[in-house]
Amino acid sequence: MAKVVRKDGDAQAIAEKVLGGDIRAAARLMRGLDDRDPAAVEVLRALFPSTGGAYIVGITGSPGAGKSSITDRLIAHYRKAGKTVGVVAIDPTSPFSGGAILGDRIRMQDHALDPGVFIRSLATRGSLGGLSRSSSDVIRVMDAMGKDVILVETVGVGQDEIDVASLAHTTIVVVVPGMGDDIQAIKAGILEVADVFAINKADRPGVDRTERELRGMIELRHVTMPTDHDSLHRFHATTPAQARADDFTWEPEIVRTIATRDKGFDDLVATIEKHRAHLEKAGGRLAREATRARAEFLAILRERLVASALERIAEEQGELDELATRIARREADPYTLVETIAARLR
Amino acid sequence: MAKVVRKDGDAQAIAEKVLGGDIRAAARLMRGLDDRDPAAVEVLRALFPSTGGAYIVGITGSPGAGKSSITDRLIAHYRKAGKTVGVVAIDPTSPFSGGAILGDRIRMQDHALDPGVFIRSLATRGSLGGLSRSSSDVIRVMDAMGKDVILVETVGVGQDEIDVASLAHTTIVVVVPGMGDDIQAIKAGILEVADVFAINKADRPGVDRTERELRGMIELRHVTMPTDHDSLHRFHATTPAQARADDFTWEPEIVRTIATRDKGFDDLVATIEKHRAHLEKAGGRLAREATRARAEFLAILRERLVASALERIAEEQGELDELATRIARREADPYTLVETIAARLR
Repeated sequence: MAKVVRKDGDAQAIAEKVLGGDIRAAARLMRGLDDRDPAAVEVLRALFPSTGGAYIVGITGSPGAGKSSITDRLIAHYRKAGKTVGVVAIDPTSPFSGGAILGDRIRMQDHALDPGVFIRSLATRGSLGGLSRSSSDVIRVMDAMGKDVILVETVGVGQDEIDVASLAHTTIVVVVPGMGDDIQAIKAGILEVADVFAINKADRPGVDRTERELRGMIELRHVTMPTDHDSLHRFHATTPAQARADDFTWEPEIVRTIATRDKGFDDLVATIEKHRAHLEKAGGRLAREATRARAEFLAILRERLVASALERIAEEQGELDELATRIARREADPYTLVETIAARLR
Repeated sequence: MAKVVRKDGDAQAIAEKVLGGDIRAAARLMRGLDDRDPAAVEVLRALFPSTGGAYIVGITGSPGAGKSSITDRLIAHYRKAGKTVGVVAIDPTSPFSGGAILGDRIRMQDHALDPGVFIRSLATRGSLGGLSRSSSDVIRVMDAMGKDVILVETVGVGQDEIDVASLAHTTIVVVVPGMGDDIQAIKAGILEVADVFAINKADRPGVDRTERELRGMIELRHVTMPTDHDSLHRFHATTPAQARADDFTWEPEIVRTIATRDKGFDDLVATIEKHRAHLEKAGGRLAREATRARAEFLAILRERLVASALERIAEEQGELDELATRIARREADPYTLVETIAARLR
């Protein structure tokens, strides 16, 4: 990898390039952040005060629902309205699904020549919590570049991806008509994060029934939500007091779309704007940002502390793999090992 | 909660009760571990040298594939063979899918009066990495109780649940015929962890095609696996050198089952035994345990270090929620905060 900080500039100079919208500087910075290059983190630190302007829209839902097509159409609509757009596309870990995803990405590359659009794919592979860390970093860089809207699209259906999408200002859950199992999957965790439902492929049979089922769930949500909204926050036991207070006043809206025929997107964009206005009136935007900041802070902290501890362990106790084999053989126990290390670090 | 360590006994005495198979002592210990009671951890430490005897079978797959019914039938078959069984059932976070799962659990409760069966449900709710930590703890206690076989059944399809299932000695992936989307979901991460495929509901149309598709994927696996086997290990960058070396010599087997009519289970149990014999011959059992030990050690370490750091932060910087709000307002930056804390802990 090319060094982020080279002889031609320090962190501040690179930060200024990124703030000026320099695509190559931004791409190089993102690669540096992927590699956890300390110089790249230094640039991010310099950018930090200039961020917070972008509006973040999460797009999630089951595989095959058409999330990439929806993202593609949203890019086009926002561009038509003169807004600049960043896209963070989160791909699943497996190499086996490579084909389909590549197809979607190529479709999205229609926008690749548009300097007002910046697309970045992230793999979910990596250390625990790494996805949330990496997507935060990429969102921050796009925010600093001055993108008006950042679309965060998840391809998978894992909890991590739901978490990432749920940290957006507005989260769209994409469903398709007539998939009983799909509704089933929504039940298992996605519903709680939806601000807007897009029923895509709305020319298919069963669309009325799907809408009815969603309305039923939204009503049920009123009953169960108050005891469960903390399930959104897997990072630690408590949540910012004010976070998602807006959830009790915002009723998730349902919009029908047909992405392949560009239908329903004026409505979808208007609904996103309506939710944005609601959040800003209710103070919910700051609350959502605080939730995201909290998760991000904990992710950085966790990574930093574990990295330090592992360095120590390597020096004092041998490599992690040997340690694991000793534990597996019952020659050492993990509880005592951790206490020894923690005591040393106090 | 009742204290784990009470006036009538110390950690060693409780450990002895658990080793003797005392169900009430084990249940109380598990509750203590849920609450991260240090006294409960003390008991676990005392139990640790006596563990390692249980054979762990993971059961994963898409929702609706019949994982609970398969688990139920496996319990019955192992019990008939005179083996004692522990079951760890991992439920998804959402309250919305409560109904279906409750039904499954009730079905499994047929075994609840059998003292040779110990069933414990775990919610996926909780802190990041908490699921893997909690399931490790519960598996360890059941292992110490002398259970011959421990079935770890996941209800959800999240990456965390796949990770947990993949840390078993033998992992069964349950699929059903004629679900194109189901195969799609398998592609997205589950395939890599399968030692055995169970095609359940094998009296349905499309079973031959599903088997053919699975065989095709298994062949493809030979091509891509070598570059990707580290994707199993999300906890850190490298893997125990020997882990999953057995994957290159074990060809995943396919078994057809009809759980509701108890068909195919002699075959399934025999295939699990065959895989077990393979692992033991190839040294793969220790390798898988080392992988699990490694992940567990890192999870305990991470939790412990972050907890210590958060205590310090609360003392010095104010509560986490306030900190998050300051970051959201751009009054503080998370990178500098983490460095300050990390420097203090060195």
